[in-house]
Amino acid sequence: MVETAPWITYRPELKVLDCTIRDGGLINNHQFSEELVRAVYDACVAAGVDYMEVGYKNSPRLHPREQFGPWRFCDEDLLNRIFADHDADRTGLKLAVMADAGKSDWREQIVPRNESKLDMVRVAFYAHQVSEAVEMIEHCHGLGYETSANLMAVTNIEDVEIDTVLQAIKPTPAQVMVIVDSFGHLYREQVDRLYKKYAEAMAGTGKEIGMHAHNNIQLAFANTIEAIILGANRVDATMGGLGRGAGNCHMELLLGFLRNPKFRLRPIIGLLQHHIEPLKTTVEWGPLVPYNITGQMNLHPRAAMQFRASSEKDDFVKFYDQVAADV
Amino acid sequence: MVETAPWITYRPELKVLDCTIRDGGLINNHQFSEELVRAVYDACVAAGVDYMEVGYKNSPRLHPREQFGPWRFCDEDLLNRIFADHDADRTGLKLAVMADAGKSDWREQIVPRNESKLDMVRVAFYAHQVSEAVEMIEHCHGLGYETSANLMAVTNIEDVEIDTVLQAIKPTPAQVMVIVDSFGHLYREQVDRLYKKYAEAMAGTGKEIGMHAHNNIQLAFANTIEAIILGANRVDATMGGLGRGAGNCHMELLLGFLRNPKFRLRPIIGLLQHHIEPLKTTVEWGPLVPYNITGQMNLHPRAAMQFRASSEKDDFVKFYDQVAADV
Repeated sequence: MVETAPWITYRPELKVLDCTIRDGGLINNHQFSEELVRAVYDACVAAGVDYMEVGYKNSPRLHPREQFGPWRFCDEDLLNRIFADHDADRTGLKLAVMADAGKSDWREQIVPRNESKLDMVRVAFYAHQVSEAVEMIEHCHGLGYETSANLMAVTNIEDVEIDTVLQAIKPTPAQVMVIVDSFGHLYREQVDRLYKKYAEAMAGTGKEIGMHAHNNIQLAFANTIEAIILGANRVDATMGGLGRGAGNCHMELLLGFLRNPKFRLRPIIGLLQHHIEPLKTTVEWGPLVPYNITGQMNLHPRAAMQFRASSEKDDFVKFYDQVAADV
Repeated sequence: MVETAPWITYRPELKVLDCTIRDGGLINNHQFSEELVRAVYDACVAAGVDYMEVGYKNSPRLHPREQFGPWRFCDEDLLNRIFADHDADRTGLKLAVMADAGKSDWREQIVPRNESKLDMVRVAFYAHQVSEAVEMIEHCHGLGYETSANLMAVTNIEDVEIDTVLQAIKPTPAQVMVIVDSFGHLYREQVDRLYKKYAEAMAGTGKEIGMHAHNNIQLAFANTIEAIILGANRVDATMGGLGRGAGNCHMELLLGFLRNPKFRLRPIIGLLQHHIEPLKTTVEWGPLVPYNITGQMNLHPRAAMQFRASSEKDDFVKFYDQVAADV
């Protein structure tokens, strides 16, 4: 067998999506300054990132505007103001939003693509919401958007549920089906198994497989690499791993791994230094022990986040005992 | 093909080595309190860890005692005092030390096994030191010890050098040949390639393959898992990932992954809370951006450690530019 060294070459069709503001906003109810959002945007352009997901299109009915920041809604006038000079053809960076099944007024909130700065809508849903997700994908596709199907919390449902979702998404116009490890629980052999399941289900449709990993047990980057090795061409990352709980796959690690010369690491390093590290004085994220524990136990990080917000936040043993007793 | 779920079973022959004090001591010249060392020991016993590497047998000629702490030398009287009640037969925990080629007075420093608390000597060496390493292994084996061959900085040498080392180690009595990713540079396909090379070279000798990973690009745990999947039966970790620069594979993640019921996570969580987290006020470790950069560039973390000790420690772009200019 001829030995190859795949780690020094690249696949041009591999696209990187930055979801710093969208996923990171779950820490602080999307109360980011406009300066920070624009700095992330500028870094994405300079680094050659393919997509930036700037937030949610969530319903203001369900998410009061006095409690949630503007990136929870991504109103078109906000996008027009912050990204006034946006030009995906020139920069190569497309803008995306996420719309949640059950949490969005998607029939009203999403305008035709040719009236928006946005190029893509990613539809996030739990397995039981797949019927609404299909409608959302078809609706957004009809408005001209690229679309993506993001089945959340995949480690928490049965194989038969995953299979049913995949069969429901298969005939839709979604270009991407994303493996979403919401609890940061997957190990590499489990990634392999899910990737093969997703890829087999989507075979012949032209759909790409995506990977969205969380870092509870420090495997977000590793699992993203694994999905890439297997053939995933859409991968998510955030600057400095910023994201709820343990955070996400780090953009600076991912771009350091990818060998496409269009990617440039230095603008990301600059963003980390000037904008992301300073956030650590006000928000916390990363693979801390309580997140390790929920990740290992395949639990939503909610309990760990609450614990870290309490006065007992460093009493790891107490948290371990609480969680172990519940499992 | 029958589908299996290997992540819910285990191999009883898989042994875990804690090298918290040995590798972590490279941060602080092995100036740990006796209380801390004993706490790590007690946690290893309680958690079912197989080996604890308590430090180096390095030469006091080359390492002045006024500059280096006692765990750099592991004098027998120290071991006899701190581990007075040590009983590997009762607890299942064996004690190990590391001896470096070129830095040890191994002919004088190492006493017969039946006069020592130690059960194992791990011989660390660079490729060009393999001849001394072979002598050291034979010497220590002659004294009754289990031995291990730890070829350091494997990402920095040619294939032909690795092959030559493996052929030199093959006929020795070393029970273990360890893959040592000193610079924290390896990705999973590279781990695969090295593992196969090591395993093929040692086939038929009964030697086990070990994995010692560093966390510069957050892949220490992932690469350790990868080696385990491939068949490695000796793996290293440290409590909280404590170790020079970016640190090591985290023991709490590793034991959370392993399914052998003899391993218990709770004592490790307690150690982290009471002894390891408090160290963060005086020493720094973990996959910080400067270590990401040296790891990606396959460099010794030395430059990053110096940078983090300087007044410019948060000027990541400056560090990136310095390092990129040198590569």
